[in-house]
Amino acid sequence: MTYCVGLKLNDGLVMLADTRTNAGVDNISTYRKLFSWEVPGERAIVMMSSGNLSITQGVITRLNRAIHQAETDGTVETILNAETMFRVAQIVGDTMREVQGRHSAALEQRGAAADAMIMIGGQRKGGEHRLFLVYTAGNFIEATDDTGYFQIGDHKYGKPILDRVLEKSTPIPEAVKAALVSMDSTLRSNLSVGMPLDLAIIRTDTFELSHQKRIEADDQEFSKLSEAWSLALRNAFHGLPGNFDS
Amino acid sequence: MTYCVGLKLNDGLVMLADTRTNAGVDNISTYRKLFSWEVPGERAIVMMSSGNLSITQGVITRLNRAIHQAETDGTVETILNAETMFRVAQIVGDTMREVQGRHSAALEQRGAAADAMIMIGGQRKGGEHRLFLVYTAGNFIEATDDTGYFQIGDHKYGKPILDRVLEKSTPIPEAVKAALVSMDSTLRSNLSVGMPLDLAIIRTDTFELSHQKRIEADDQEFSKLSEAWSLALRNAFHGLPGNFDS
Repeated sequence: MTYCVGLKLNDGLVMLADTRTNAGVDNISTYRKLFSWEVPGERAIVMMSSGNLSITQGVITRLNRAIHQAETDGTVETILNAETMFRVAQIVGDTMREVQGRHSAALEQRGAAADAMIMIGGQRKGGEHRLFLVYTAGNFIEATDDTGYFQIGDHKYGKPILDRVLEKSTPIPEAVKAALVSMDSTLRSNLSVGMPLDLAIIRTDTFELSHQKRIEADDQEFSKLSEAWSLALRNAFHGLPGNFDS
Repeated sequence: MTYCVGLKLNDGLVMLADTRTNAGVDNISTYRKLFSWEVPGERAIVMMSSGNLSITQGVITRLNRAIHQAETDGTVETILNAETMFRVAQIVGDTMREVQGRHSAALEQRGAAADAMIMIGGQRKGGEHRLFLVYTAGNFIEATDDTGYFQIGDHKYGKPILDRVLEKSTPIPEAVKAALVSMDSTLRSNLSVGMPLDLAIIRTDTFELSHQKRIEADDQEFSKLSEAWSLALRNAFHGLPGNFDS
């Protein structure tokens, strides 16, 4: 399982992913699920993945191979030279289809799931910052003003807090806290979601990664946030009005 | 879908259920999922059900039919004369098996799910108050000191708050609020869980339903609780420490 959350705000994009992968509960590993690319001043892109790891790694490898090829052959289209962020999402979707075409039949024959999802956030010079969600079939949707965030993986535990505190106008530091609290609720309830975490921020119109960090299991600031949230929740609860026992 | 939560505390049992049933998103109805029986001063029992409605109604009907038969034939064993609460859970499990045996093959042949779950809480004179969860196969588990609550239906949205605020020693009025806040989070996020709600309380060693109430959609006290919780959550969030954007 996985938990990744991507937020699209007026001030930019916040992307947060866990790193746990598992094949059964007795086979747990740590794999990065958040990947970033940047051409400073030109464009910055962050992707997060869930689902079958061989599929998502296959997609990332192909995207990077194209970037490498484009260094010597300027006609190769890549996520770094594609005209728009929409076209970037199409390229990822097409690459997903290619990898699925190669593996999904064999996987399904063995009873294994080939499902995978990739979230893409980024901005290119001359365009808006955008957030997309690519499905197993290569189709995709975009975050809008109505729904300014996506979650992939086990989304339920971490959804209520996002719905309650996020607005388009939420400043980046507050949005990062919302993402971390949402992750904290998921970590507590789902063993197949685990530390460390990867956090990336792209501020609007900077065309670069303004922040990227791995938050380790012993991160002091995250521990403090997690404890403060537990305490605040309990305090909030004990202050509630009403008497339903009469 | 459904959301039911049953809490076992030192002071008694708190049972809360929604009433929405649906066959697809375009076919929504209201059905009671919480049922109670009492022989005041002798025993009190509350059941809550989820899953295939024809199955759970079939179980409840058979349990009531046996109670009716026992009025004229004292040898018929029922949930109201069974020796222990454990035996009550066995009777419900056996009845579940009987109904499944009658319908599940035909249901599965049509591609419909026969799955169902029933939560049973109660106390008989001479015994402890106990809480059981009966599965589709008729087997069951009991709530213990380690895990003093059960949820059936869509449990994820409403679990974090229960894990954070519930203790065995939580007084009944606080526990009712915890159940209602847990329900509120689920109502907000899952359209297939809906008002009105049914609430029942059995206080330890009273052997009767100390409280039973239907909470309608326009219930003032529940609305107040729901609003206060939203506000308290947002305030708690905005008071969190830390700066992850540096």
